[in-house]
Amino acid sequence: MSHTINDDDVDIVIAAIRPDLTTFMEEWRIIFSRFHLIIIKDPDLEKDLQIPPGFNHDVYTKLDIERVVGPAASASLSFSGYLCRYFGCLVSRKKYIVSVDDDCVPAKDDKGHLVDVVAQHITNLRVPATPFFFNTLYDPYRPGADFVRGYPFSLRNGVECALSCGLWLNVADYDAPTQIVKPQNRNSRYVDAVLTVPVGVMMPLSGINVGFKREVVGPVMFPGFRLSGEGKKRCETLEDIWSGMCAKVVCDHLGLGVKSGLPYVWRGIGEENDAMESLKREWEGVKLMEEVVPFFQSVRLPRTAVTAEQCVLEMAGMVKQRLGPLDPVFERAANAMVEWVKLWKAIGSGSS
Amino acid sequence: MSHTINDDDVDIVIAAIRPDLTTFMEEWRIIFSRFHLIIIKDPDLEKDLQIPPGFNHDVYTKLDIERVVGPAASASLSFSGYLCRYFGCLVSRKKYIVSVDDDCVPAKDDKGHLVDVVAQHITNLRVPATPFFFNTLYDPYRPGADFVRGYPFSLRNGVECALSCGLWLNVADYDAPTQIVKPQNRNSRYVDAVLTVPVGVMMPLSGINVGFKREVVGPVMFPGFRLSGEGKKRCETLEDIWSGMCAKVVCDHLGLGVKSGLPYVWRGIGEENDAMESLKREWEGVKLMEEVVPFFQSVRLPRTAVTAEQCVLEMAGMVKQRLGPLDPVFERAANAMVEWVKLWKAIGSGSS
Repeated sequence: MSHTINDDDVDIVIAAIRPDLTTFMEEWRIIFSRFHLIIIKDPDLEKDLQIPPGFNHDVYTKLDIERVVGPAASASLSFSGYLCRYFGCLVSRKKYIVSVDDDCVPAKDDKGHLVDVVAQHITNLRVPATPFFFNTLYDPYRPGADFVRGYPFSLRNGVECALSCGLWLNVADYDAPTQIVKPQNRNSRYVDAVLTVPVGVMMPLSGINVGFKREVVGPVMFPGFRLSGEGKKRCETLEDIWSGMCAKVVCDHLGLGVKSGLPYVWRGIGEENDAMESLKREWEGVKLMEEVVPFFQSVRLPRTAVTAEQCVLEMAGMVKQRLGPLDPVFERAANAMVEWVKLWKAIGSGSS
Repeated sequence: MSHTINDDDVDIVIAAIRPDLTTFMEEWRIIFSRFHLIIIKDPDLEKDLQIPPGFNHDVYTKLDIERVVGPAASASLSFSGYLCRYFGCLVSRKKYIVSVDDDCVPAKDDKGHLVDVVAQHITNLRVPATPFFFNTLYDPYRPGADFVRGYPFSLRNGVECALSCGLWLNVADYDAPTQIVKPQNRNSRYVDAVLTVPVGVMMPLSGINVGFKREVVGPVMFPGFRLSGEGKKRCETLEDIWSGMCAKVVCDHLGLGVKSGLPYVWRGIGEENDAMESLKREWEGVKLMEEVVPFFQSVRLPRTAVTAEQCVLEMAGMVKQRLGPLDPVFERAANAMVEWVKLWKAIGSGSS
């Protein structure tokens, strides 16, 4: 369905964690070159970015971030490392954002065809989601599929989908301990399915390969959940897991859908096998997720919260009150959520 | 993993809706012949069953059903058509029951290999389920897979799986209206995944291809939800959808898992294309599911219900009270649930 995408509706957001984007962008050229790219340089990165010619792109650096975000918000919001990606939400004016980590290249499907990650995310976002009853044949709107016997007809129109969470072949998205215990584990199973994550069900949204409707999900895609011992490896982060759970709670509350499954990316170029270095650190995430998941599972937002912005502010209050006393990371996250909504209203919420 | 199955742990339960089982059983010979088969003849069927030699099987007929069930229970419990299958739960003494409709043959996987439906169901039942948090990489215990970053470590042991719901290639499991509207629709997508249906999420359990732990799920797998205009076609029934939702509620309450996905069967042999005949009837299920799904989504069982039998009795009371006034089919279902638990305790609950 890629031929039906209006190029002007999509921004591709790239967090440049590594300075040399040449391989990354050449691999994606066939898919990305028709779209506008927002490239945010990790503010910790000192070397100049290397970007091959022939792309319609804007690069944002530490200076741009400081200028746009301002000193007040900078105190609460970190854009370091993978968190720099969120700056793209602020400056985009497009309907859809698709974001892929810079260590991924296009995957091939089970028939050997190149996966068009943008086309699949946009399809996922345009086709309704079905959060209120589980369809055993996965996406009922896919050609050749339908709703299974027993599915209530009143639910067959589905709801708007706001967020599409893609997957990864080769190096899967494991946390630091799993990555250390199973350094050779590779995901080779291409599962040809997209499914709606049901209402009330929490899932770990990976930021490696996502697509979303900017105006709906942008207020929730905030930076600021940064672990103290975090480095520049995905397996050490939880920022996307946190904002993903915020997004799931908000989508559930607003009656919007979240999907998981296709499209796949091929993950792993440039990956350094520094398991030994990680072994020296204790990964804070092991402890924190034991609090984070039950918290988000229990969050109930008031009926008065009818926009994503209001939902985030409500959640920030609950985070501060219920999780704040447990660990400073939660207090910081709550402050970041409040600051992000301010920034979003001032800068991000405009449309093209 | 089929080599690890103890043949004596499994009963294959077949509802004989059609008298000639020759093609069906020859197609399944390579998979079924090492197990004991329980074949229940639809009590409405007059012709003698044709069963090829070489199987270890017992056949149960209308006379056996009347003798075992007795006249009192017979007033509440119908074993007509697809419902006769449930009689197999009563007479089995095995740990696992696998049941496949008699219009299905073995499927081939995406690599062209024959699918061993028994091995896959038993694997699904032996491997833990993960109902409390969604794993985006599907079954985390599958070789090559694991829990995705952000998955709480305290939940990684999973819980016991009690019920495995398989899928269908070729003719999918659609209801009567969908079957009429899309008579040529075929499912050709082999999705190589097993996933836990999360706690609190309702799904349409299809009885076409299921495996379950008899002692846990048997009390819930009751016959008695029979639509008034129901014929001998799967697309006209809801019995399995109803008992499947009972089973899901009970499993959720008891902390047990339910899975959906692999294994596939190939569905459609002997299917008659009598869409025109079905068109003459209004399918009652369209109306009923609008009540059934919200009901099961809202059922909360008391903490005092700690066995499947107790859960079913609690639910029967709620069905009678909340759904009974809406349609006589619900009153009948509630009575059938009570009768079934009595029968189960007297006859079904024994172990080998």
